[in-house]
Amino acid sequence: MPAARRVVVVGASAAGLRAAARLARLEPRTSVLVVEAREVFSYAACGLPFALGGEIDPDDALRRTSWGRLRDVEYFAEAKRVEVRTGCRATSIDLASARLHVEDARGSTEALAWDDLVLATGARPRRLPNQPVHPRILALHVFEDVATLRRGLVREGIGRVAIVGAGLVGCELAEALRSLWGVETTLVEAAGWPLPGVLDPEMAQRVAGALTRNGVDLRCGAPVRALVPGDAGVVVALDGGDVEADAVVVAIGAEPCVELAAAAGIAMGPTGAIAVDERLATSAPRVWAAGDCIEVRDAVTGAAVYRPLGGLANRQGRTLGDVLAGRPARFPAVAGACAVRVFDENVAAVGWTRVAARRDRVVRSAWLTADDRPHYWPEARTLAMSLVYEPATGRVVGVQAVGPGDVAKRIDAATQLIARGATLDDVAQFEHAYAPPFAPAVDPLATLAWVALNQEDGIEAEPPDVSLDGRPLVDLREPSERAANPAPSADVTPASHAALRDGSTTPDPESLLICERGTRAAEAARLLRARGVQRPYLAGGLTFHGTDRGPS
Amino acid sequence: MPAARRVVVVGASAAGLRAAARLARLEPRTSVLVVEAREVFSYAACGLPFALGGEIDPDDALRRTSWGRLRDVEYFAEAKRVEVRTGCRATSIDLASARLHVEDARGSTEALAWDDLVLATGARPRRLPNQPVHPRILALHVFEDVATLRRGLVREGIGRVAIVGAGLVGCELAEALRSLWGVETTLVEAAGWPLPGVLDPEMAQRVAGALTRNGVDLRCGAPVRALVPGDAGVVVALDGGDVEADAVVVAIGAEPCVELAAAAGIAMGPTGAIAVDERLATSAPRVWAAGDCIEVRDAVTGAAVYRPLGGLANRQGRTLGDVLAGRPARFPAVAGACAVRVFDENVAAVGWTRVAARRDRVVRSAWLTADDRPHYWPEARTLAMSLVYEPATGRVVGVQAVGPGDVAKRIDAATQLIARGATLDDVAQFEHAYAPPFAPAVDPLATLAWVALNQEDGIEAEPPDVSLDGRPLVDLREPSERAANPAPSADVTPASHAALRDGSTTPDPESLLICERGTRAAEAARLLRARGVQRPYLAGGLTFHGTDRGPS
Repeated sequence: MPAARRVVVVGASAAGLRAAARLARLEPRTSVLVVEAREVFSYAACGLPFALGGEIDPDDALRRTSWGRLRDVEYFAEAKRVEVRTGCRATSIDLASARLHVEDARGSTEALAWDDLVLATGARPRRLPNQPVHPRILALHVFEDVATLRRGLVREGIGRVAIVGAGLVGCELAEALRSLWGVETTLVEAAGWPLPGVLDPEMAQRVAGALTRNGVDLRCGAPVRALVPGDAGVVVALDGGDVEADAVVVAIGAEPCVELAAAAGIAMGPTGAIAVDERLATSAPRVWAAGDCIEVRDAVTGAAVYRPLGGLANRQGRTLGDVLAGRPARFPAVAGACAVRVFDENVAAVGWTRVAARRDRVVRSAWLTADDRPHYWPEARTLAMSLVYEPATGRVVGVQAVGPGDVAKRIDAATQLIARGATLDDVAQFEHAYAPPFAPAVDPLATLAWVALNQEDGIEAEPPDVSLDGRPLVDLREPSERAANPAPSADVTPASHAALRDGSTTPDPESLLICERGTRAAEAARLLRARGVQRPYLAGGLTFHGTDRGPS
Repeated sequence: MPAARRVVVVGASAAGLRAAARLARLEPRTSVLVVEAREVFSYAACGLPFALGGEIDPDDALRRTSWGRLRDVEYFAEAKRVEVRTGCRATSIDLASARLHVEDARGSTEALAWDDLVLATGARPRRLPNQPVHPRILALHVFEDVATLRRGLVREGIGRVAIVGAGLVGCELAEALRSLWGVETTLVEAAGWPLPGVLDPEMAQRVAGALTRNGVDLRCGAPVRALVPGDAGVVVALDGGDVEADAVVVAIGAEPCVELAAAAGIAMGPTGAIAVDERLATSAPRVWAAGDCIEVRDAVTGAAVYRPLGGLANRQGRTLGDVLAGRPARFPAVAGACAVRVFDENVAAVGWTRVAARRDRVVRSAWLTADDRPHYWPEARTLAMSLVYEPATGRVVGVQAVGPGDVAKRIDAATQLIARGATLDDVAQFEHAYAPPFAPAVDPLATLAWVALNQEDGIEAEPPDVSLDGRPLVDLREPSERAANPAPSADVTPASHAALRDGSTTPDPESLLICERGTRAAEAARLLRARGVQRPYLAGGLTFHGTDRGPS
C-alpha cells in the first residue's frame, strides 16, 4: 500500500477547516493536518460584535455546533478526522522540498512534508500609519479581543471609547457599546459618511441618523492624524477637535496575511493578496489558498478585488476541499454582497457604489422609497433603496438598501442578477414570491429598476440629499399629508396632476417636484414633460430626504 | 391635428389598470378607456383573506393608495388620466370593424371604436362539477365576497365552515376563519396533502401540522362527490365521512375569463387561456391581453402554463403599457414563485414540485433542515427546504421552503437562479448578504445544493416522511439530544463518527442513519461508504421528520 497522501493546511480559519474537513470526508486515505498559531480557533468571527454586545453568550456560543458540541481539537479529530495542531506557527515554506517549517510555543521546530499545501492564513486588522502599540489601543478581530474589551469595560473603568473607522465592524461595535454598555462612544471616519465602502453618501444618511439618535458621537470626514496614549487613556488627534477616550478600537478594515506565501515566492495579485485561479490554485504547484488571504474576481468588472467576507471564505473552503479531492469545483466571481445592522436600521448592498464605480466608468444612481410589504400590511416597514447602473449598457452594477424593513432579501436576489450581468430591463421584470405577509405585488427591486428606466427616459431626478432650503417646491401631496409633514422650504406650491396636465399650473423654472415617496412627483414630471416643461423631482420623496428621522 | 388614438381596456384589474395608467402617462394624446362590469375595482385582491381575518380593515385598506386616497373613478381620471366606466359589461368584440360592444346596467348598449384593445378580463373561481348555486356556497375571489362572508359570520350565525380546496386561498381562509372568528373549520382537499400545487407531500407535512394544531379539521385525499344544500346549511359529501357545514367556500383555483376573446376568434393556448407573445399580443392584430386571462411561458420547460398570480399581472400591465407606447418591453418566462402564510408556518416555493415534474422528466429531491440565521443567533428560526433537480443535467427545476423562518428570501433568490437555468453547481456557490442578524455564513440555499450534490455522489438519502416505525436506527446524536428527543423507533443504536470510521460499529443492512437535522448522519453515510458499506440517512433529520410538532 502506498504512503498516504498528506495535505497540510496553514490556518484553522473557516476556509482552512472547511477545506480540511471536506477533503478528509471525500478521501478517507488522505492525511489532513491543520496548523494554527493560536489556541482558540473555529469560532464564528462575524459574531464577535454581538458577543460583546450581549446578544449572544460571549464565552461559548460562537465556538459550538448547533448541537452544542465545542469545536475543539478533539471534535475535529473525532468527527472530522482532521488533526489540528494549535500553538503551531508556520515559519516558512520550502517549495523545492515540499516542506512547511513550523515552530511550537516552546520554540521546537519541525519540517512537515506535504503533497498539497493549503494557505488559509486569513487577515489581520489594518493599522493606522504609525499606530502605537498600547494596551488601550485595541482591535475587534480575534476571539480574545472580546474578552479584552469586556475586561476593560467591566473591571478597568473604561467609560469612553473611540472607534476609528465606521465600516461594518465599527458600526456593529458602536451599537454594542451603546446598547449593552452605555459607554460614551465616538465613531471616527475619514470619509464623509459612515459605511463608505458599502453605501453612497445619500444612502448613508439614514445610518448616520441611527448612530446619532442612539447617542454615538459620529465624526465623519475626520482622518486620524495620530493616536496619542497618555495617563488617562488615548487621545485621537483629529482635524476639528481631538477626542479623548479611555480606549480606542481601530476598525479600518482587514489586510491579508501573506508574508509566509510571499517569502516563498508565491505570486500576489494586484490587490496585494494571494493570487489564485478558479480552482484556488496559487502560482506554486500543489499550493492552494482560500479565505481572507486571497483575492477574488469581481463579477461586474472582472478585475481582482480583495473581499475578506465570511460567506466567501466558507464557500472557498468547501470548493477547495472538492478540488483537492479531484472534483471539478470552481469558485466563481463575486458580486460583493454584504449586510450590517446598525441599531434599528438594516443595511445591505451588493456590487459597486456610485462613488467607487465612477473611478473607472460612467454610472448613474436611481433611488426609491418603498414598503417591504404591501402598504396596507400592518408590519410593512420602509426601505430606502438605490441602484447604480451604467447608462450606456443598461447594466446594473450595484444595489443598496437601508431601512427598518427587509433589506437583505432584496440584496440576495440582486446579487444573483448582478452576478449574471443583468440589465435594468431584467431587474424591471424581477419575479418574486408574492403574498401580503412577505412582499408587495411588485417588489421594490423591480420598482427601483422602473425608476431608473424612467430616468433614462428623461424623467429627471434630484438625489435624496439635495438641499431643499429655500428651493421652490411643487408639492403633489394631499392636504392632510402637507399638514402632517410640512415640506422643509418656505416656498411651497401645492399642485395636482390634473392641474399640471391641463396647464393651469406651470412650476417655476427653478422648482423641484416633491411628494412623500417620489412616485407622484415622478409622474408629475412626466406630465409636465409632455407639455414641453422639464422639471426635476425629488427622488425617494420627503421620506427618503428626511431619513435621519428614524424608522417607520 | 389627427384624431387621438383610442385604446380600450376590458377589465379594471391590476393588469388592465396598470397598462392603462402607464400608457396614459407615456402618451398624453392617447385616449384610454377602461370598461369594467363591476362597481368596486382596483383593490388588492390578494389581501382579501386578511381583510376577512381582521388583520387589515375590510372596508377600506385594500382600495386605498399608500397616501390614503381611494382608488375610484375620480382618482383614475384626475391622477392617471384614465377613464374608468364601471357597470359596463363587454358583450362582444367585432374585429373587422374594431368595435367593442358594451352594455350598461340598464341595458343600454354602445359600440366603442378602438385603435388598440386590451383584454384584462381576469379569472373567475373554478367550480366543482355540478356545483349548485346557493347562497351558502361561496367563493373568496372579489371584494364583495368578504362582506358576504362577514355578514354570514356576524349576523347569520354561521359557525361551521367547510372550505373545499387546500390551495393558497383555502389555507389563508382557514387561518382567517380560525384566528379571528373561531368557527369550526373543515378544510377538504382532493389531493393527499395540502398545497399540492406548491409543495411535495413530505414538505406539506409541516403545513398539515399547523392547520391541525390550530383546530382546522383537515381532510386530505378527499375528493368532493357533491355539495348538497339543505335547511341547516350544506353537506359536503366525501368518501369516508360527509361534512355538515353552515356554509361552504369553494377554493379550488381560478380559471381564465376568455369567453369574450374566444367568441371573437382570438386564439387560446394549450392551457385554455388566451395565447400571447412576449409583447402580450394576441392572435388578433392590435388586440393585446394581460393578467389572469392569459397563459405565460414556463421558465423551466418553455411550455405554456396558466399562472394567475398577482405579481405577474402587475408586471404584465406595466409591460403592456410600455409596448402600447412603442417601447421595446417584453414579458419574460415565469419561474412560478409563490408564497403563503399558514398560521405560524411560512411557505414559499418556485418552479416545479417533484410530483408535477415527474410527469414528463426524471427528477430527484434533496432535503435540508437549517436555521435561517446562525444557530447561535437568538432569533434564528427553522427552515425545512427541498430542491428538485434533474440528475441528468444538474438543472434545478424547483425549490420549496416551509417553516417559521424567512422562507420567501430564499425563494426570491432561487427564482432568479431557476429562471436563468442554474445547475446544482451554480446554486452551491450561492452568494448572499451575510451578517448574523440576517443569515448564516453559508445560506441554506447553498447548503441545499451541497446536499443534492452529495446525493448524486452516492450519499443515499431517504425522504423526510419515510416511516421510522420499527426501523433499525443508527443515531449519531449526543446523549443529551437523545434524551431530549428520543428517536421514534424501538431499535436505536447510538454511534459516533469515529466508531463508524474505524469499523468498530457496522450498522445492520436495513438500518437508517439519523441525527437531528441530517448533517451528521449524511457525513456518517460517507464514512461508511469509504469502507464499502452503503447505508442511507434520514434527509433533514428528526427535526424535519417531526415537522408536525410546530415551529422552532
